Amino acid sequence: MDCLLKKCRIRNSLLRECLAECLGVYIMILFGCGSVAQVTTTENSKGHYLSINLGFALGTTFGVFVSRGVSGAHLNPAVSLSLCFLGRHPWIRLPFYVVAQILGAFLAAATVGLQYYDAIQHYSGGHLTVSGPTATAGIFSTYPADYLSLWGGIVDQVVGTAALMVCILALGDSRNSPAPAGMEPVLVGAVVLVIGVSMGSNSGYALNPARDIGPRLFTYIAGWGEEVFRAGHNWWWVPLMGPCVGALVGTLIYELLIEVHHPDMGLNLEFSDQGQDNTSQPEVELGTVHSEKKSTPMTDLTGS
Amino acid sequence: MDCLLKKCRIRNSLLRECLAECLGVYIMILFGCGSVAQVTTTENSKGHYLSINLGFALGTTFGVFVSRGVSGAHLNPAVSLSLCFLGRHPWIRLPFYVVAQILGAFLAAATVGLQYYDAIQHYSGGHLTVSGPTATAGIFSTYPADYLSLWGGIVDQVVGTAALMVCILALGDSRNSPAPAGMEPVLVGAVVLVIGVSMGSNSGYALNPARDIGPRLFTYIAGWGEEVFRAGHNWWWVPLMGPCVGALVGTLIYELLIEVHHPDMGLNLEFSDQGQDNTSQPEVELGTVHSEKKSTPMTDLTGS
Amino acid sequence: MDCLLKKCRIRNSLLRECLAECLGVYIMILFGCGSVAQVTTTENSKGHYLSINLGFALGTTFGVFVSRGVSGAHLNPAVSLSLCFLGRHPWIRLPFYVVAQILGAFLAAATVGLQYYDAIQHYSGGHLTVSGPTATAGIFSTYPADYLSLWGGIVDQVVGTAALMVCILALGDSRNSPAPAGMEPVLVGAVVLVIGVSMGSNSGYALNPARDIGPRLFTYIAGWGEEVFRAGHNWWWVPLMGPCVGALVGTLIYELLIEVHHPDMGLNLEFSDQGQDNTSQPEVELGTVHSEKKSTPMTDLTGS
Amino acid sequence: MDCLLKKCRIRNSLLRECLAECLGVYIMILFGCGSVAQVTTTENSKGHYLSINLGFALGTTFGVFVSRGVSGAHLNPAVSLSLCFLGRHPWIRLPFYVVAQILGAFLAAATVGLQYYDAIQHYSGGHLTVSGPTATAGIFSTYPADYLSLWGGIVDQVVGTAALMVCILALGDSRNSPAPAGMEPVLVGAVVLVIGVSMGSNSGYALNPARDIGPRLFTYIAGWGEEVFRAGHNWWWVPLMGPCVGALVGTLIYELLIEVHHPDMGLNLEFSDQGQDNTSQPEVELGTVHSEKKSTPMTDLTGS
Repeated sequence: MDCLLKKCRIRNSLLRECLAECLGVYIMILFGCGSVAQVTTTENSKGHYLSINLGFALGTTFGVFVSRGVSGAHLNPAVSLSLCFLGRHPWIRLPFYVVAQILGAFLAAATVGLQYYDAIQHYSGGHLTVSGPTATAGIFSTYPADYLSLWGGIVDQVVGTAALMVCILALGDSRNSPAPAGMEPVLVGAVVLVIGVSMGSNSGYALNPARDIGPRLFTYIAGWGEEVFRAGHNWWWVPLMGPCVGALVGTLIYELLIEVHHPDMGLNLEFSDQGQDNTSQPEVELGTVHSEKKSTPMTDLTGS
Repeated sequence: MDCLLKKCRIRNSLLRECLAECLGVYIMILFGCGSVAQVTTTENSKGHYLSINLGFALGTTFGVFVSRGVSGAHLNPAVSLSLCFLGRHPWIRLPFYVVAQILGAFLAAATVGLQYYDAIQHYSGGHLTVSGPTATAGIFSTYPADYLSLWGGIVDQVVGTAALMVCILALGDSRNSPAPAGMEPVLVGAVVLVIGVSMGSNSGYALNPARDIGPRLFTYIAGWGEEVFRAGHNWWWVPLMGPCVGALVGTLIYELLIEVHHPDMGLNLEFSDQGQDNTSQPEVELGTVHSEKKSTPMTDLTGS
Repeated sequence: MDCLLKKCRIRNSLLRECLAECLGVYIMILFGCGSVAQVTTTENSKGHYLSINLGFALGTTFGVFVSRGVSGAHLNPAVSLSLCFLGRHPWIRLPFYVVAQILGAFLAAATVGLQYYDAIQHYSGGHLTVSGPTATAGIFSTYPADYLSLWGGIVDQVVGTAALMVCILALGDSRNSPAPAGMEPVLVGAVVLVIGVSMGSNSGYALNPARDIGPRLFTYIAGWGEEVFRAGHNWWWVPLMGPCVGALVGTLIYELLIEVHHPDMGLNLEFSDQGQDNTSQPEVELGTVHSEKKSTPMTDLTGS
Repeated sequence: MDCLLKKCRIRNSLLRECLAECLGVYIMILFGCGSVAQVTTTENSKGHYLSINLGFALGTTFGVFVSRGVSGAHLNPAVSLSLCFLGRHPWIRLPFYVVAQILGAFLAAATVGLQYYDAIQHYSGGHLTVSGPTATAGIFSTYPADYLSLWGGIVDQVVGTAALMVCILALGDSRNSPAPAGMEPVLVGAVVLVIGVSMGSNSGYALNPARDIGPRLFTYIAGWGEEVFRAGHNWWWVPLMGPCVGALVGTLIYELLIEVHHPDMGLNLEFSDQGQDNTSQPEVELGTVHSEKKSTPMTDLTGS
């Protein structure tokens, strides 16, 4: 058995990282969209909005646990973009990561569609609709509330993703108050939880282009039709563009208000090593750089 | 007192491990089924579906705390089976573990039946039924929703247990992003929480043959009768077979997408020991191997 | 300021420990009974049963944080009794601890009564009653559900406290799977949470003689009258006796099924020190022994 | 990019700390008031009172993560005042901190007002009112319940903030049972959670002058008018004064009951260093002193 598995080993580091991103997003969306399916098809009798928040939060946590040691657990094209922008991730890998993330989200949506097939049929009476009393497209991707204007939707996505990015950068900033070693996935999940609790009602807190477009493509193919792109005055492009802008805004806010002002560590490294709170792990930066630093050189030596 | 207790000491490692598995499952089901009993008998006034999710999640957490250092805290025949399959647990111990797990679940169901005796009598008017408005068999084991087809139920159990297994293997994979030392029980509980929140409505997320058949046997004996096996078109065998298949599927997914591709540690062990995130605990693998490594040799020297 | 505070220093270790137990129980009950007051007086509009569970759970967590380093954070006469029984706490200190615990609970109930004075007056129309539609005595101490028989109530308290004790002993057992250093208070709170979620509906999970009798005495004095002792067929003595029996039962279960069977560490201490999971803190046993070991000798040298 | 950011670097330590306090309070209020906006404008369909409790709790957690390494994460004028009183923070910095905290809260309220502009317009029909069925001022700052007397409100704020301060001081007391290194932000959030669950219904648990006056100023300017100061019999000054008194009361309680009685560490430092529970981090006191110790001297050497 062990030998059999070893034969399947892939040595190319980029491919390994893409597999990890794909599985990470898959786990995140499987739990996230699954929780929406449960609440929708049981009409709130087996869960409330808070369980949807928990589904996406813990989905993110375990998505990060599954992939962080291999790919750094971006799980979000907007996060990948910001890290490229900061010089912490090579631009050349960005398109591969994005494709893997969208693929993972698509497959997860298909799995949720399969697992809840009977429930969706029973709840919707067999009519797969995007709006109306038994709409089920909202199980998979996000749609705006009726009252939301286009600008309101853009502001909503930009603010939400900027807040996400500020918190993620703070959790990984070893010179501020970093997350305890190994607890990063839990705390990233907690960020997603609090955003869902405080910024979820306008348009369903996509915050992530892959999380939204992957399942939307699934619903397009699986029977909900073109309406998934037309609904909400062609809403579909907002969760693609908004998060990318928001992540860059959040990155700038954290960098300009906190990170660039940290005292220079070059001159007094010994002193700061002692004074630092996180003596056990002084260099982890969200695990992202970390995976680049560690796994890439290793695999470059041995990889194809 | 201390001397008196010492006299009861058992030196046989297999028996010790079976006792630990039994108590671990007991604690898990005591809290899990207890939470269903509370929500059912108070008609949602002292808890909701989310408190049932919390009951099973924290029940699992403390079941793991109680047994992990001794038996590795499988608490689930499907998990034991997968670990045997991966070569991390001896096949010879599998049947003993399974019996101990089922026994623990049976005893826990009996305790819940005793603790909620008055409440169940009051709620059901003394009629112990499997279906209908005051059905109480669902307190103990799982039954499918009315709309669920047999294939839908099998898919539900396979997907749920596969997701559980992927997350558990990731938490224990020291070359990925392992759980912080000592927090494994909490994070395993969190996996159970998110599965309950996102995959609970179809058939009650058994995910565990022992969790389901133990309490079902109790209800069969305690007055609910043969209907507990007949209900849901003989549903009872699905939570036995589904989780075993699902755990193997999840194991294969994690192994093939993540674990087999980790760079070989044999050549650069020193480097990887430094670079690893979890410097404090580089070898723990879910606590399972760990208990094998530690306790078995020790007790083999002294055991009967 | 600093000098002024130093003058108030008490060197007697028993008195210090009693102050810590008193403040610990005070914090626990202040948050616990406060959450019941909030849910009761707002008629579930600002909280549900789950927020009561969270109130007692996090109340316990911070009660432990406040007192653990000084007194070991028993916070419960039944726990103190069990630790004396196990030889981990001197019998001579038991009565002092119990008095301090009851005093803390009494003062906390008085504070809740003061903080919610307007709310209770408004909700109850000024009539402080123990039963009926606007009963408010249940804010402070526990009363059984209407359907509960006396034996059912005793079983409920014994099972609940036994489960509490098994989990607490497992969290502190350094040869099993102990809580990570410093996280014990959080995990003890999680035990209280899961018990509230799964064993709360029969009689309000007192589990603690001090938690129940202290607030009951307050209600007796503050205007609810003798009915607080007569209600539920003189229920008041059950949450005193039940938890003491339950804690001893739980202690025996954990000792006989798990702890006495741990392989002897005397012969291979070096090996086990390396092999142990919790290398950083190999001797902490729930913080209780710890405080005895550390603070008592010190203060004996200097104390009155 | 990196060079561009470096040019914006500020070397003045006070200014850096004020930026961190401002961003920390901003994050806290953005999530906190956002959760109230979500629950209010969706009329409890996308959240309940518990999600508001989670919003403020996790908002506090991430506010602390964002600022703790730089400014010590007071995030609350009442906490700053108490720390000055204890001699752990220089009085001279107090006014700067307070201004930064109020500014952060004001900006966060403005962001919430922008993000929920459409929702508030839709919910309130365009009428921004402080009381009545579609009142929206309560999204931003706190107002008392109808039944609450002035003295009741003052007691409520004093008790709540005192409880907050006792728990915060316990979490940072290295000779008691301190929070595990790096988990302080999570546990401070948990204190806010339990206070919201148990002391939130009387007047909305402001506990923090900046949290209340900043958003109140925003509502005053943004269209709610003078009524925000007149409502509740000029309630606005209670959440300013009450928390300051409460924080001092809580500080005195913890100091007099616990901290001053710790055995003197001067004479037996070696012994206590070994015996101490928290061997990894024996000097951290809530991160506050810590930032003073670390960043101030460094920046004094290089600062303007």
